[in-house]
Amino acid sequence: MVNYQEFFSGDAQLMQYSAIRRMARISTQPGIISFSAGAPNEETFPAGEIGEIISSVLASEGKTALQYGLTLGFGGLVDAIVDFCLKRGISSVTSEQIAITSGSQQGLDLIGRLMIDPGDVVFFELPSYIGAISAFRNLQATLIEVRQAEDGFVIEELITRIEQSRRSGKRAKLIYVIPNFQNPSGVTLSLRKRQQLLEVAEKYDLLIVEDDPYGEVYFDPGLLEQLTPIKSFDREGRVLYISTFSKILAPGLRTGWIVAPKQIIEKLDIAKQATDLCGSMLDQRIVAECLRRGIIQKHLPSIREFYRAKCQVMLDSLKCFMPSEVRWTRPMGGLFLWVTLPATLNSEEILYSCLEHQKVAYVIGRPFHVNGEGANTLRLAFCKENEDNIRVGIERLARVFKSYLE
Amino acid sequence: MVNYQEFFSGDAQLMQYSAIRRMARISTQPGIISFSAGAPNEETFPAGEIGEIISSVLASEGKTALQYGLTLGFGGLVDAIVDFCLKRGISSVTSEQIAITSGSQQGLDLIGRLMIDPGDVVFFELPSYIGAISAFRNLQATLIEVRQAEDGFVIEELITRIEQSRRSGKRAKLIYVIPNFQNPSGVTLSLRKRQQLLEVAEKYDLLIVEDDPYGEVYFDPGLLEQLTPIKSFDREGRVLYISTFSKILAPGLRTGWIVAPKQIIEKLDIAKQATDLCGSMLDQRIVAECLRRGIIQKHLPSIREFYRAKCQVMLDSLKCFMPSEVRWTRPMGGLFLWVTLPATLNSEEILYSCLEHQKVAYVIGRPFHVNGEGANTLRLAFCKENEDNIRVGIERLARVFKSYLE
Repeated sequence: MVNYQEFFSGDAQLMQYSAIRRMARISTQPGIISFSAGAPNEETFPAGEIGEIISSVLASEGKTALQYGLTLGFGGLVDAIVDFCLKRGISSVTSEQIAITSGSQQGLDLIGRLMIDPGDVVFFELPSYIGAISAFRNLQATLIEVRQAEDGFVIEELITRIEQSRRSGKRAKLIYVIPNFQNPSGVTLSLRKRQQLLEVAEKYDLLIVEDDPYGEVYFDPGLLEQLTPIKSFDREGRVLYISTFSKILAPGLRTGWIVAPKQIIEKLDIAKQATDLCGSMLDQRIVAECLRRGIIQKHLPSIREFYRAKCQVMLDSLKCFMPSEVRWTRPMGGLFLWVTLPATLNSEEILYSCLEHQKVAYVIGRPFHVNGEGANTLRLAFCKENEDNIRVGIERLARVFKSYLE
Repeated sequence: MVNYQEFFSGDAQLMQYSAIRRMARISTQPGIISFSAGAPNEETFPAGEIGEIISSVLASEGKTALQYGLTLGFGGLVDAIVDFCLKRGISSVTSEQIAITSGSQQGLDLIGRLMIDPGDVVFFELPSYIGAISAFRNLQATLIEVRQAEDGFVIEELITRIEQSRRSGKRAKLIYVIPNFQNPSGVTLSLRKRQQLLEVAEKYDLLIVEDDPYGEVYFDPGLLEQLTPIKSFDREGRVLYISTFSKILAPGLRTGWIVAPKQIIEKLDIAKQATDLCGSMLDQRIVAECLRRGIIQKHLPSIREFYRAKCQVMLDSLKCFMPSEVRWTRPMGGLFLWVTLPATLNSEEILYSCLEHQKVAYVIGRPFHVNGEGANTLRLAFCKENEDNIRVGIERLARVFKSYLE
């Protein structure tokens, strides 16, 4: 028979199932309180309004909505995203600087393919988003870690790592950052560090991949100024800004976007053409019409309140039930918070105990660490369960943690 | 300012806008009779029925239809595709051997990423599909040409090329073939050659990428046996079969699929996860429901007749108007036929004259040739224009060709 292993490319040889996906399967059994699933809550999807929109889209432009479209995206959506970006504080955007992608994940993958040769360096926080880690790792990038403080990237350590990688002869190209309510940690990069990160990129000739899927899901409008995108400070064209409608409309519609310098978008057009010709035209028209009718904007306050309330219940429950040795982050938005156990504990080992004896699940922290650390960490998603389940689940988790601390 | 060129990967450095896209822009001016556009005709899209289906999908499973889904595709669609493949003569398919992709183009790209290291050899017919050429070229594959006869691949030449590439020390991995009504030539690979191609793959330890977007768009049901997929003869698991609903339902729904050995699908799952997490869930449910309700099957006879009639008008017009030095193919299905001018003529030069003086457009043949030949060839798509326009357009083309032959 055929030995497929001999046919696989160097990239493919190194690709591995993520530990998270393996565990996601055991964590979705019925009866389990799940803090593992990171998908947005389906209660926030405006299914009725989307239904109405589809009817009107098909009635008015049914044939073209079902035809091939432009690789960089449906013009009506591109224009609507220009406006959306302006409201987010990215003031100098034009339609030539935008590419629509199949979710923000495709944006990460395409940027990787445009920028990464095997061995090229990308800097990641500890911890960081596993989907970005996979996208760059699958291209054989060298992923270098930088510690994360309560206000994000430790800038001094980033500089040290950049200088180390230069001395080693590697080509340092990208800094990857989720500035707002990071997945997995819930940490927000401070305003000052946003500017510092850009200065570092300018000084050392790097580009920044600013991945912002959660920026609109803040819990306190008073903090808005602190959430100013790095892209809005970008004078030289060093920031590739990525976002998505997955958390504020519906992820099944697979619609994200990139804001980047025109020269990069032009190259991305060629690359994307060969990867999928174009994205779903129906999805793009639905999102464009949702923006035009103000449906996303109208629902945002209730989405923010929806997740804020759940987060608050989880924080209150952690405070109430957790032993003093356990620490956690206090997110200002998003879907996640991050728990650090004493260094002697192993969250993977404990997870099996949680699943078996207490029917509660989380995601282990180690796969979010590009350097293999983090065995004593874990991610709690507060997006899925109702408030009662959050209380019960945290109490159960605390019980298991205590048993390991005795 | 930033020198982006220095940031681009080796792959990206080599990516170029296709000549076809450049010319597509000038060919879509109003008033031009276009034989260039290769998109399926919008009159064949069942927009009304799709509208009904979306309403019922959103009513019955609106929330899950808008949520993230499995990377390899919505289970209901995977199962429906297993049935669809069985009817097409691929008898040993199970759901574990199927991946849903964002159009067949994503299938090509993912297979390339799984299989191709820079320099690895892929064999292409002269001419072949430009989207496949781009997908593999963007991965720095070595594309080696094999001449095409009236019944497809010249098998002896393929064998010679394989042996040449082996002697040169290159790793020959894939044979790329569109067996039915090939884009661009309209040529169909004979039944005998389908079996020979597989024997060659077995003998020389290669895999076959069988790209079959047009297989259902045949003009004569009597020919059906001759269209048996190569995949149906595949005992060893050497054929990666790719298809799409773009030509028989609607391309904007971006839904294609791959049938491949389980070991390859498992690897593809990991690769695809990092490229887009999952495809459009709404598109996938629409297609699944179209299959379940028999809508695609019901419309197929009229789609076949729609293109058959247009093709016949074009063939009749060619016979009526073209000078004797011009040759063309006689497709048994699909959307395209292929014209060969005398070797001294250049179809790119003539195209500008056609556009300027006769307002008629085609696609030049050279970009479909991986070895840079084909300057005297061109592709005519009969899918877009009505029958009157086809007659008028071919007459105009003939007038220009004659002027160059004087």
